[in-house]
Amino acid sequence: MVQIYTGNGKGKTTSSLGLILRALGHGWRVCLIQFMKNDWSYGEIISLSKFENLDIFKFGTKNLVDPKNPAEIDFKEADAGWQKAREVLKSAKYQLIVLDEINVAVFMKLLPLEKQLELCELAGTAELVMTGRYADEKVIARADLVTEMREVKHYYASGTPSREGIEF
Amino acid sequence: MVQIYTGNGKGKTTSSLGLILRALGHGWRVCLIQFMKNDWSYGEIISLSKFENLDIFKFGTKNLVDPKNPAEIDFKEADAGWQKAREVLKSAKYQLIVLDEINVAVFMKLLPLEKQLELCELAGTAELVMTGRYADEKVIARADLVTEMREVKHYYASGTPSREGIEF
Repeated sequence: MVQIYTGNGKGKTTSSLGLILRALGHGWRVCLIQFMKNDWSYGEIISLSKFENLDIFKFGTKNLVDPKNPAEIDFKEADAGWQKAREVLKSAKYQLIVLDEINVAVFMKLLPLEKQLELCELAGTAELVMTGRYADEKVIARADLVTEMREVKHYYASGTPSREGIEF
Repeated sequence: MVQIYTGNGKGKTTSSLGLILRALGHGWRVCLIQFMKNDWSYGEIISLSKFENLDIFKFGTKNLVDPKNPAEIDFKEADAGWQKAREVLKSAKYQLIVLDEINVAVFMKLLPLEKQLELCELAGTAELVMTGRYADEKVIARADLVTEMREVKHYYASGTPSREGIEF
């Protein structure tokens, strides 16, 4: 099955983390691949290091991608993430594979849409979860489950910054 | 801050689990109180038992609540969950408190709306997260962050049942 978590509201990455926790509790083998997030100090990554059945791969740089002018390294990293995802899916070693922020990488054209669609076809009996704003309508059409996280209200709007422990 | 995850789509409880994982990674003290879910075999609960800084309390019975005719025990359990939430908030012992499915308990009138609103006032400097469909508009008005998980597409509609490892 292919699951998509998209939309402008808070809760996309965190819901995939909850799915990981749930699957690990039942002894599943899980793989988390993060695009555009090469920072190992996030709270969730520290917590998840306790689990033996989980492998984590991170791609991207520590800098935010400039959406109007991505650097060459941003394209290279997105493609390396895609190569890893394809390898992992083909290995059939994992029951749950999470591709965090891949929707954004495709939206920013760091990765061609066709490559994301190709990954959907490789899911087989595994659960493939893809997160990030701006999921393409073709990916939505292909997926088995799609939740749009809709921002009804956010404290960012009233000036509260991103907070350690809550946003990362 | 008060955060609400509501709506008819998949991802409400799982996003609160992701927040728990993130907070624990930064050494926060966390409390998870689940309403209407007295089952300790859920994958996430098994996984979370690894963490020392987390306390979990569960209320409700193993049976689903009949929305048209809740049993006396359902009211008692919801009130016991609320008492625990109030005690935990007043203790100021935790930095993150998750009240899972409390919105549904209030929607089913197992718990008066006023009691949920009272908990919001006790959050203080802690992060209070409340999940479940049908969050009341007064709770939404009071909250600092609200995400509606909107179901765009769900495999339940094509006959796939709730699956261990993914739904529980």
